[in-house]
Amino acid sequence: MKMAHLITNCSFSTSAVQTFSSSPNYCRSVGQLQNSKCSNLSLKSCSRRQKKPYVTCASAAVQGQTQTPLTGSQQAYEHSSSKPKKVMVIGGDGYCGWATALHLSNKGYEVAIVDNLVRRLFDHQLGLDSLTPITSIQNRIRRWKSLTGKTIQLFIGDICDFEFLSEAFKSFEPDAAVHFGEQRSAPYSMIDRSRAVYTQHNNVIGTLNVLFAMKEYSEECHLVKLGTMGEYGTPNIDIEEGFITITHNGRTDTLPYPKQASSFYHLSKVHDSHNIAFTCKAWGIRATDLNQGVVYGVRTDETAMHEELSNRFDYDGVFGTALNRFCVQAAVGHPLTVYGKGGQTRGYLDIRDTVQCVELAIANPAKPGEFRVFNQFTEQFSVNELAKLVTAAGAKLGLEVQTKSVPNPRVEAEEHYYNAKHTKLIELGLVPHLLSDSLLDSLLNFAIQYKDRVDTAQIMPSVSWKKMGAKPRTVSV
Amino acid sequence: MKMAHLITNCSFSTSAVQTFSSSPNYCRSVGQLQNSKCSNLSLKSCSRRQKKPYVTCASAAVQGQTQTPLTGSQQAYEHSSSKPKKVMVIGGDGYCGWATALHLSNKGYEVAIVDNLVRRLFDHQLGLDSLTPITSIQNRIRRWKSLTGKTIQLFIGDICDFEFLSEAFKSFEPDAAVHFGEQRSAPYSMIDRSRAVYTQHNNVIGTLNVLFAMKEYSEECHLVKLGTMGEYGTPNIDIEEGFITITHNGRTDTLPYPKQASSFYHLSKVHDSHNIAFTCKAWGIRATDLNQGVVYGVRTDETAMHEELSNRFDYDGVFGTALNRFCVQAAVGHPLTVYGKGGQTRGYLDIRDTVQCVELAIANPAKPGEFRVFNQFTEQFSVNELAKLVTAAGAKLGLEVQTKSVPNPRVEAEEHYYNAKHTKLIELGLVPHLLSDSLLDSLLNFAIQYKDRVDTAQIMPSVSWKKMGAKPRTVSV
Repeated sequence: MKMAHLITNCSFSTSAVQTFSSSPNYCRSVGQLQNSKCSNLSLKSCSRRQKKPYVTCASAAVQGQTQTPLTGSQQAYEHSSSKPKKVMVIGGDGYCGWATALHLSNKGYEVAIVDNLVRRLFDHQLGLDSLTPITSIQNRIRRWKSLTGKTIQLFIGDICDFEFLSEAFKSFEPDAAVHFGEQRSAPYSMIDRSRAVYTQHNNVIGTLNVLFAMKEYSEECHLVKLGTMGEYGTPNIDIEEGFITITHNGRTDTLPYPKQASSFYHLSKVHDSHNIAFTCKAWGIRATDLNQGVVYGVRTDETAMHEELSNRFDYDGVFGTALNRFCVQAAVGHPLTVYGKGGQTRGYLDIRDTVQCVELAIANPAKPGEFRVFNQFTEQFSVNELAKLVTAAGAKLGLEVQTKSVPNPRVEAEEHYYNAKHTKLIELGLVPHLLSDSLLDSLLNFAIQYKDRVDTAQIMPSVSWKKMGAKPRTVSV
Repeated sequence: MKMAHLITNCSFSTSAVQTFSSSPNYCRSVGQLQNSKCSNLSLKSCSRRQKKPYVTCASAAVQGQTQTPLTGSQQAYEHSSSKPKKVMVIGGDGYCGWATALHLSNKGYEVAIVDNLVRRLFDHQLGLDSLTPITSIQNRIRRWKSLTGKTIQLFIGDICDFEFLSEAFKSFEPDAAVHFGEQRSAPYSMIDRSRAVYTQHNNVIGTLNVLFAMKEYSEECHLVKLGTMGEYGTPNIDIEEGFITITHNGRTDTLPYPKQASSFYHLSKVHDSHNIAFTCKAWGIRATDLNQGVVYGVRTDETAMHEELSNRFDYDGVFGTALNRFCVQAAVGHPLTVYGKGGQTRGYLDIRDTVQCVELAIANPAKPGEFRVFNQFTEQFSVNELAKLVTAAGAKLGLEVQTKSVPNPRVEAEEHYYNAKHTKLIELGLVPHLLSDSLLDSLLNFAIQYKDRVDTAQIMPSVSWKKMGAKPRTVSV
């Protein structure tokens, strides 16, 4: 899964992007994406120690445009030292990553995005598209610069390619690495054997490489790793934050909370957690594992500033999460599709809280050798509860919302106990956006605004946990 | 890590082995190994459904040699049906795998070995060698056939190559798959980044492929997977067999026992366990996870039948385990090297019990959908206790055995509580060989017999957990 971009004409060229890859299908598609809108992009070599030509930074120098100062609720983050903290956002072109990169840049952090853009390729290959139109990462960064005067560096490449990742670390020297750079869809990982293997290889090896890069080049760097609440499964006891104190046969120890993941994707995060915990102990790595719930919403203060800063919004059966998908269904008059009995309960959070949580983790870093786990969600709902909330909110907007149960494509308990702790981020200062306040403004109205872009063929589940096979599969909608 | 062998002249050729590989260094070495001793080997295509040319079976047809009948304690396994059970031994050329393959063949199972022989390559690359001289897998199988009349099929290839593995499954149609086919050394996984990544990729993806092959081609097949007691780490409470019942805040559930592995190798086994448990639940796979302790000894009834059936015996700092290494040290007058304080306590078992345990697991298979975990060891000792036992046994043979503490290359507790359950295999009928009975016969005398082959430069630890780096490293002795 190597992908590295060679800038042949490094200094202020406008479109001299060539792509080299051992994986031709990735190469082709990313090339298409890039070539479509990069005519105004300034690419330059911005590394202090840069030796290899293919580690590049698109710092989006904008000539002749007015620089808009920060306004409103935006605050530049004040650091005790005069230098801003440097944060590498791995996977910074994705749903959570893009919102986080902008938020941190807005708060005064010096931000670099590391991304191989493969998430855009998945859409091409599966015939999917974001509800919201999104522009290229190069245009996004250029627009951000033009609006705020803030530079976001860009390293395009694959973190499974350690040579690429090393150069990015040596060049940028991050104080914190926020790692969203994984294949993040459970259904995607369950399409066929090759997607399962891709997911576990990509996620586990990518994270191993990040850990080695930190050990080798940035020993003080704080890893903020996106995990998932799905690592815990649905045990019949309360879910704690990463660890549980067990008294057994008269002795007591605090041990990692038992994991029961339910897809090859969720399992990849379990593997990551174990690997990271070990390196904290063996090498003194400092790490925060954010076991995130299901994220909903799309607007943040920063992405709302300009349509070219828009975040992606997935409502399809592969990448769309329950609540976002329900809002789109309500907007277009499609029945809400409840999988099975609908008693599946999970933790949820607004994307505005995702960016807040990551910032809190960075501002209050783990100690050297500490492996810290936060459960990152604000409220828990069953699927049936979500359907009821969307139905009620829809009624206020004059929408008549139906619900129908569809066969559950997953293997999961449909009625179960669920009580997960989530106090550590609150203790650090998280002020949650609650769903009841966001549903109309940030979700349903948004879905209605873009409803003409909805492709209803993408909505139904197309991946079955039980029926997945070894043969490569082209998912047709 | 693809490696597949193309038999260009399939029918009864004598040395027409060509090797194709995307990994040239593997290719070269395996080729050398094969070419050295295969002049008498009959290679033939023995698959009923075989379509691809590179899935091959070396069934070791022997012409002009007397077939020795089973004698002594050997018993052909009696099955309720007339057909013998078919067992695929993945990694059947390795230390535990070879002993197991012979034992099962001896007991009347129809055995196929699947192996890419990469363990032999590790020795070449690290400058190591087995204490015992071992011959090629082809000669081994031929010798077994000549002595017993029993055929062991051979599939040479890499289970990370799903095309190869599929053909092996379709051709052999196993009733059980015993999976030893992993990189099994903790120090090897801690040499450098590339070895860490290789270990996790090879072990995790290889096991995923086995699970997919079972789902696709052998739904009734029982997976017997070698895990390790090292998955549990050293918690301050009793270690149960795979699962623990936890009462927490007034509610109770039985959950996977928390894992705290302490090397990238041990972590790979943790990852495997989670993946296997999921597929049992999602697909109805039947699996037994054998969390094995440290294996000692080398002789089994079968390997003792002829020097060409000898098993390997590793005493080096990378692949040698504590007790085997101590016996070699005692034999050559090298002080026993205790890492750190020597309070590290682990479960141990004789290799004769390894083969017995695997047989018991196969004879009493898990049910469809069942993920069963057995702790596979017979006694537990601290490193200091082992050193004392070897010192006392050495004295009986006139050896003056010294012990010295060397800096611990690992990151591990050197004094800790340890009490691990191991009753499930006993309940199935395991009759252990205890160390006190085996130490002189099976270990020390054996080490003395081969002491002229000892390379003392291999004994000391050469891999440091804390100092491991990202750069590729050539381990020098």
